[in-house]
Amino acid sequence: MSLDEAKAAKPHERLAKALESDLSAVDMLIRERMASENAPRIPEVTAHLVDAGGKRVRPMLTLAAARLFGYAGKDHHRLAATVEFIHTATLLHDDVVDESTQRRGRPTANLLWDNKSSVLVGDYLFARSFKLMVETGSLRVLDILSDASATIAEGEVLQLTAAANLSTTEDVYLKVVRGKTAALFAAACEVGGIIAGATEDQITALRTYGDALGIAFQIADDLLDYGGDATATGKNLGDDFRERKLTLPVIKAITRADDDERAFWVRTIEKGDQQDGDLDHALALIAKHGTMAMTRDDALGWATKAKDALDDLPDHDLRDMMRDLASYVVARIN
Amino acid sequence: MSLDEAKAAKPHERLAKALESDLSAVDMLIRERMASENAPRIPEVTAHLVDAGGKRVRPMLTLAAARLFGYAGKDHHRLAATVEFIHTATLLHDDVVDESTQRRGRPTANLLWDNKSSVLVGDYLFARSFKLMVETGSLRVLDILSDASATIAEGEVLQLTAAANLSTTEDVYLKVVRGKTAALFAAACEVGGIIAGATEDQITALRTYGDALGIAFQIADDLLDYGGDATATGKNLGDDFRERKLTLPVIKAITRADDDERAFWVRTIEKGDQQDGDLDHALALIAKHGTMAMTRDDALGWATKAKDALDDLPDHDLRDMMRDLASYVVARIN
Repeated sequence: MSLDEAKAAKPHERLAKALESDLSAVDMLIRERMASENAPRIPEVTAHLVDAGGKRVRPMLTLAAARLFGYAGKDHHRLAATVEFIHTATLLHDDVVDESTQRRGRPTANLLWDNKSSVLVGDYLFARSFKLMVETGSLRVLDILSDASATIAEGEVLQLTAAANLSTTEDVYLKVVRGKTAALFAAACEVGGIIAGATEDQITALRTYGDALGIAFQIADDLLDYGGDATATGKNLGDDFRERKLTLPVIKAITRADDDERAFWVRTIEKGDQQDGDLDHALALIAKHGTMAMTRDDALGWATKAKDALDDLPDHDLRDMMRDLASYVVARIN
Repeated sequence: MSLDEAKAAKPHERLAKALESDLSAVDMLIRERMASENAPRIPEVTAHLVDAGGKRVRPMLTLAAARLFGYAGKDHHRLAATVEFIHTATLLHDDVVDESTQRRGRPTANLLWDNKSSVLVGDYLFARSFKLMVETGSLRVLDILSDASATIAEGEVLQLTAAANLSTTEDVYLKVVRGKTAALFAAACEVGGIIAGATEDQITALRTYGDALGIAFQIADDLLDYGGDATATGKNLGDDFRERKLTLPVIKAITRADDDERAFWVRTIEKGDQQDGDLDHALALIAKHGTMAMTRDDALGWATKAKDALDDLPDHDLRDMMRDLASYVVARIN
């Protein structure tokens, strides 16, 4: 791309360009390892999702974290593929859990095949991801990524039990967000630094960056559900309200509710008795208490925390792109 | 137990007695690690299955394999708990995939809670099992158990795509059986020997034993579906026929079918158009071709292979019980 194009490009696009040859190697590894001689259904289902082309932010974070320290081996490819496998496995299982029909603009695997295939192919990808990690020979990396996998599942279960529960606190919300998004972002960054021989302080900085980036991203996503457009999130306005998910704008509004407002939230979220006009009323209550602005401030705070963490890392083009990425995930709401 | 009681006891009961203190330690570890501070749903679902009390054959195999070589550390507890976690996770996912309503004489977790909880708690247990393995510090053990996990998922996917497919061969059936049963039996035995410092030949013998034991067990189980009683298997006669699963007695009968018989199998298994009396007709065809006896011979052959593999292992009470266990899994059909 030209200099002007490069300036206009989004940070994840610039990362993809800077990491082009690494990403190709990761793609090859993913295609090689998703194969199953015995069960052709496995690569079919996996390819459906992989070919739909997510932004590959997680594997890029691993690659960038390793490259920041001049890493020249091959283990960053294995770990980037591992991270993408874990992510793909969780998407397959999430779509079953959420009964989703669309993902990345295409019908979900559970719709095209069935829930059974999504559950089992997800399990296969989890197992293959561990196999890939083992090949790096780093027990520390294995420990971090098995912890992250447990935290992801824990966050999803917590989200399940927190849904429709009006007593969900901001603290519980943060645990859910750490599970569903930030745990893998943090681990992806951390393991890249570890295999590249970063210092303990730098590894902590990478983890802090990934954690804060993931939280900022997820809060922004949840915020857009009450004020964005479908093109920005791939969701429709009010999806979370209809699914009775407790996200930050609503949790903050419930905390500030008077008796009448509380009765409204009990009926619509706790009891799930929703009628025409309820979403508009919810939006009005959110506006009344100014919880959109508060939520936006929270997201911006996390993005700043992510950027600040990068100060301790080597001066590098990739570091600048990582910093821009943290600005970008909240630019949508700013 | 008295000497007479000990003689009358089943091999897995004798193993449980001989490994009593090890099994208590494994139980404690399982209860400790299935906890989740953040998501109480996780230990609830897990305890429902754990408390129902399976026979714990898999963890006992790990413990026995390690004790055969005089192992005196603590890693065999971690690995036995790992193996039981992987098994429990696959049961949770299997019950979702098979839409089961009963397991170990109790309602399944997917019935008591929901499919979502079963999928996500299974994922959590997989992740926790890897964390436990990492604590042993053995990359070889991690490699074996991550391979086994992939083989399990692969076998389940293969079973899914082989269902209702009349071209399923005995070879495909064997791959399914290795996946759904033998892979974890084999890995459970193998890793016990590895941490105990067994020789390569002995490790191979342990793997061969576990593999053959698992295959013998699964063939016997599938055979009983066409000729056992519900108390022996926990299933009803003909369940596999109704679910259009291709198991050995039917695969062998289809291979030997004339045109009329083939038309019957196409209608009942491939098209799933089953009527009153069809199970009786299937049983008659199986009897006509003598495929029950052939299948029994296959199972006995695998049991013998399992017992023979033990010849290379140290002379030990536990070895005798493992040998008796191989006889026991086919005694039900002999």
